[in-house]
Amino acid sequence: MFARDTAVARTGEGHYAAHIRENWDIGGKANGGYLLAIAARAIASEIGRPDPVTITAHYLSPGSVGEANIQVQALKRGKRFAVASASLNAAGLPLLQVLGTFGDLSPVGDVFERIEAAPPQMPVPDDCIRQDPARGAPRIFSSMDLRLHPEDAGFLRGEPSGLMQTRGWFRLHDDEPVDTLALLLAVDAFPPTAFNARLPVAWTPTVELTVHVRARPAPGWLRACFTTRFVSAGFLEEDGEVWDSDGRLVAQSRQLALLPRGAG
Amino acid sequence: MFARDTAVARTGEGHYAAHIRENWDIGGKANGGYLLAIAARAIASEIGRPDPVTITAHYLSPGSVGEANIQVQALKRGKRFAVASASLNAAGLPLLQVLGTFGDLSPVGDVFERIEAAPPQMPVPDDCIRQDPARGAPRIFSSMDLRLHPEDAGFLRGEPSGLMQTRGWFRLHDDEPVDTLALLLAVDAFPPTAFNARLPVAWTPTVELTVHVRARPAPGWLRACFTTRFVSAGFLEEDGEVWDSDGRLVAQSRQLALLPRGAG
Repeated sequence: MFARDTAVARTGEGHYAAHIRENWDIGGKANGGYLLAIAARAIASEIGRPDPVTITAHYLSPGSVGEANIQVQALKRGKRFAVASASLNAAGLPLLQVLGTFGDLSPVGDVFERIEAAPPQMPVPDDCIRQDPARGAPRIFSSMDLRLHPEDAGFLRGEPSGLMQTRGWFRLHDDEPVDTLALLLAVDAFPPTAFNARLPVAWTPTVELTVHVRARPAPGWLRACFTTRFVSAGFLEEDGEVWDSDGRLVAQSRQLALLPRGAG
Repeated sequence: MFARDTAVARTGEGHYAAHIRENWDIGGKANGGYLLAIAARAIASEIGRPDPVTITAHYLSPGSVGEANIQVQALKRGKRFAVASASLNAAGLPLLQVLGTFGDLSPVGDVFERIEAAPPQMPVPDDCIRQDPARGAPRIFSSMDLRLHPEDAGFLRGEPSGLMQTRGWFRLHDDEPVDTLALLLAVDAFPPTAFNARLPVAWTPTVELTVHVRARPAPGWLRACFTTRFVSAGFLEEDGEVWDSDGRLVAQSRQLALLPRGAG
């Protein structure tokens, strides 16, 4: 359960203890969005603002199951927003460094709105391809229900689409509600766009991940779309959009990932 | 001159002194990209890596001309990258907090490359609209030469295009070479997309700015394109791409900006 598995306990001013739990990893390495959610929960607790409005993580070392601690430093406590940095450490190593602006994303009533995009068109979840640990998918997919657009699932049968795009549905296991912290997981939970791209490598470790949370999600399935446009000089970006069941954009993400040297 | 006006002097381990100079402001408030470049120069110096690969700033207070100091904290010194955070302070206030991964973006020879985009098509610089302080443009444009695509310059004569897009050419004054630190300025130097959008307000302060530097620019004019797709819940994002004279993408940027409450 996401809320329990990202829980933090305050042990002193700005100091938090946490556990990196089972079933949030790919091949033993804890998912970067999951680790970010733990750090964000500590920040939210320390500065008393529930929602990450914009948050960035730089990844320093891979994490695995075990105890972790978070140090939060409040940098500004304003009327509308608070800003803080945090480091998440485990086994004596810093795993990630985080910088975030937090606030309250309760609906604000009538405000100017202009949207020049739409959610990805997808078959209903039952007609999409479930990432199923019982059928060989990584065990992190026992913690969530992730269904890929059939056109973007070709890599699963060795037939990558050739397009650097991943679209799919997302919800947490047992339909646990997705809050703004769980959105930090959602933007990093999908198979990399590289899997469909016929890139020389598929392993693309995240250097940095930035998420803008634009609204609290409505209950129900989330739809997401991830695309890559630039693979160059050993790097690629992955841009994400997450939409809720009301058709509202709830998060935008971008990560910089690495094409290991020697690729190509 | 950009290099001189962003100079830093080491005053102790991780401590740097700098000056926020004249002619890098809009209405007295120092440009956010300019301030980020000062902080980035301090980081690069402290950790001995020349190029910001991915860097994020959260803006805490506006800055104005005067002395400033930067505190740099090195977080990781790896073989390929180093990670550091920095705060830039002036007049006793923190102006911005920065988190960056730095490296060496010297050309790496043959690597896998795949680009799904192209530079914006634009008239030559002489057929574009120069932002000219002698004709009422903010004085920051005496420090650089910025030429807007005529289709995106309608706001200057009170005829906004209605499209949330700003395209243009950029170079520094006197054709000073644009290095990877000056790219941090370039991504924040163009008029906001809001100016052409018929938004209820034009003032959209930056909450956070993230820049991925993908290559060192070739000499000559840079081309840039900025777009906004989502204005909602009091926020908007602005996505930027900067291309060099060889037609290579050299930077991607995204900022989260604020639509002040009450707008609309």
